[in-house]
Amino acid sequence: MPAYKEMSVEELEALKKDLEKEFKKIKAKGLKLDMSRGKPSALQLNISMGMMDVLHSGCDMAGEEGVDCRNYGVLDGIKEAKQLLADMMEVPKDNIIIFGNSSLNVMYDTIARSMTHGVMGGTPWAKLDKVKFLCPVPGYDRHFAITEHFGIEMINVPMTPTGPDMDMVEKLVSEDEAIKGIWCVPKYSNPQGITYSDETVHRFAKLKPAAEDFRIFWDNAYGIHHLYEDKQDYLIEILMECKKEGHPDMVYKFSSTSKISFPGSGIAAIAASDANLAEIRRQMKIQTIGHDKVNQLRHVRFFGDIHGMVKHMRKHADILRPKFEMVLSTLDRELTGLGIGSWIAPRGGYFISFDAMEGCAKAIVAKAKEAGLVMTDAGATYPNGNDPKDSNIRIAPSYPTLEELKLAGEIFVLSVKLVSIDKLLGKL
Amino acid sequence: MPAYKEMSVEELEALKKDLEKEFKKIKAKGLKLDMSRGKPSALQLNISMGMMDVLHSGCDMAGEEGVDCRNYGVLDGIKEAKQLLADMMEVPKDNIIIFGNSSLNVMYDTIARSMTHGVMGGTPWAKLDKVKFLCPVPGYDRHFAITEHFGIEMINVPMTPTGPDMDMVEKLVSEDEAIKGIWCVPKYSNPQGITYSDETVHRFAKLKPAAEDFRIFWDNAYGIHHLYEDKQDYLIEILMECKKEGHPDMVYKFSSTSKISFPGSGIAAIAASDANLAEIRRQMKIQTIGHDKVNQLRHVRFFGDIHGMVKHMRKHADILRPKFEMVLSTLDRELTGLGIGSWIAPRGGYFISFDAMEGCAKAIVAKAKEAGLVMTDAGATYPNGNDPKDSNIRIAPSYPTLEELKLAGEIFVLSVKLVSIDKLLGKL
Repeated sequence: MPAYKEMSVEELEALKKDLEKEFKKIKAKGLKLDMSRGKPSALQLNISMGMMDVLHSGCDMAGEEGVDCRNYGVLDGIKEAKQLLADMMEVPKDNIIIFGNSSLNVMYDTIARSMTHGVMGGTPWAKLDKVKFLCPVPGYDRHFAITEHFGIEMINVPMTPTGPDMDMVEKLVSEDEAIKGIWCVPKYSNPQGITYSDETVHRFAKLKPAAEDFRIFWDNAYGIHHLYEDKQDYLIEILMECKKEGHPDMVYKFSSTSKISFPGSGIAAIAASDANLAEIRRQMKIQTIGHDKVNQLRHVRFFGDIHGMVKHMRKHADILRPKFEMVLSTLDRELTGLGIGSWIAPRGGYFISFDAMEGCAKAIVAKAKEAGLVMTDAGATYPNGNDPKDSNIRIAPSYPTLEELKLAGEIFVLSVKLVSIDKLLGKL
Repeated sequence: MPAYKEMSVEELEALKKDLEKEFKKIKAKGLKLDMSRGKPSALQLNISMGMMDVLHSGCDMAGEEGVDCRNYGVLDGIKEAKQLLADMMEVPKDNIIIFGNSSLNVMYDTIARSMTHGVMGGTPWAKLDKVKFLCPVPGYDRHFAITEHFGIEMINVPMTPTGPDMDMVEKLVSEDEAIKGIWCVPKYSNPQGITYSDETVHRFAKLKPAAEDFRIFWDNAYGIHHLYEDKQDYLIEILMECKKEGHPDMVYKFSSTSKISFPGSGIAAIAASDANLAEIRRQMKIQTIGHDKVNQLRHVRFFGDIHGMVKHMRKHADILRPKFEMVLSTLDRELTGLGIGSWIAPRGGYFISFDAMEGCAKAIVAKAKEAGLVMTDAGATYPNGNDPKDSNIRIAPSYPTLEELKLAGEIFVLSVKLVSIDKLLGKL
């Protein structure tokens, strides 16, 4: 099959007719599948069910330091949970605070605190005329929703195969004092699965922001979420790099066990410099007496240590890998050479990012929906839901079964083909 | 023994000598007891240990509506958890949102949201020159800490045996548009154990605030925390009253299972009008994907329904009642008629409130500490830690054993006597 744009109008129209027949057939199968979010499958959840047994009515509920995990006390997490998540996040255990079930909530609260109380003595952002954030795109919709919610202006920064466009980041951050932060998913990024290169991380650590209260929001959501044993990405640890460069306070690092144990019933953490953590604790002690220590204990008893967690992640990988490969092989087989889309094969994370021809993404998602396949809204990977090229589509292969994914893949490529033909025919 | 103020200087000095001997003796016992917070005892925590068994690796993790409680989804709580907490809070299940482990966190977030986004279209409080809150005193230190943290001016309103001074509340609220809220612990109040009378609740529901975005922060922390089967306080349900009076949106009601199941590992909730909840959900969906549904399921499976919870609370009462009675009998026996302090015998909740002679509270707490008894800081029950009469002391009898409490009671009354004598002798 030649590239679509090299085909004549007649050829395209003939092809369209054939594809429409196929689409009709597949639509008749009555699929009803929601692939809109990066949700683990039931099989993945099952591998953590041992977590329901490690605590029982006959067991000792004391933490290593003797604290009764059932009672009030311990603001920032029990020692052994700090150790576990510190190892997971590759930071010293004293540079971590354990929170509740959601790192998103921690990020939201971090922005909220900056709005009302400022960052380390800086003016509360709510009192400034203008606050801006850099948003590498495509990116994570829930990050952008937080900054949008607080009226923060978002500036798109294009992603490259090695991370955000650092020339642009360096220039903007050093020139504009209103820029207070940047959202990053540095490893197996959402949605592209890109891991920031060594050079990118080094350039982040060397940033010279105009704003003293500028912070890198380093959401390492997929730090140990590899798909392969033999092909893994490595990410340089940002806290240490910033410290070496004399900017220890420039970064907040977030993570959670949401996609390790149970989404919504895991534990979240922030890692940061001593000074940042001291400030966070000052506010945190007003907000809560402490987070769920029983659940912290449950995680520690279940995983034991970071090695236990790494072994556990292999089980997730074994379930996820065939799903990613199913989608990728469908894309490879059906779309290679047609010039109507591009994608990256990730080595970890939860997503495959697909770039359609400009102006086609919304129509493709709508077309797929016609056949019962709900995908993430086109545009969701951009601030304010606005993808200026209307090109990017996030594919989330984790939740469906392999069988469903096979069908979903077929619906998707058919939708891409049909919409692309319409586009080339000027009918879109 | 006559009232101290009717004794001569010589009599007081002789008495002081005797008491000092007693104090020395008791100090020698080397007690080390922290009675500063309202923490349940280990015995109380033990009665909830069955909660660690109700979920296990072989069990069904689906909620009543079929949702897999282990996965993402369900922003505002699973249906059966809503029903359980709605029954506990005496509201319809559709007027409730389930949160994480801490109602304090929900209250903090409610204020934070009002600061940055305003209340139902009102000006964000952070953009106003002045925001004020009414604070019934004595009250809960952590409430006051939240308003202090956000720079909200706090106005003391004296508590009476039937609740806050409603003449003052009505007058202030109707006159001053800067008054945006009032902190209430309406049942078995912290620290006095007072339950608001029917008239007080009715007057709350009939309030005509100058500020459209005025809200009653109704922290019903001890709604089912009775000490007795035969002597219980009743509190009129405020949401319904406000609705009847045509002010359905005027109140936020907070509660949690922190002192029912496990402190820090319970579930919290807010109850409010449809319009208030809709606004909260709009913000909440930016802040989190959802709270810990596994823990919600655990609570439902353990308690079954509100009747199960009520039966459970009897076990707490059986443990707490003798402790309250131990403290109260010590106060009765040692201080009645001396004119150096007054207290209320509560029928529920977690505290006994003691009012010393003016200017004595700080010295009493310091004196008790000399003998190894740590109490809540004097002043903590007032905004900014400032009890203008330096009189109120909060006694928290729940955590110590009966034996420890016996000794603690003796230390406390000795401290009260010694400090009161110094006060009368002009030596304080």
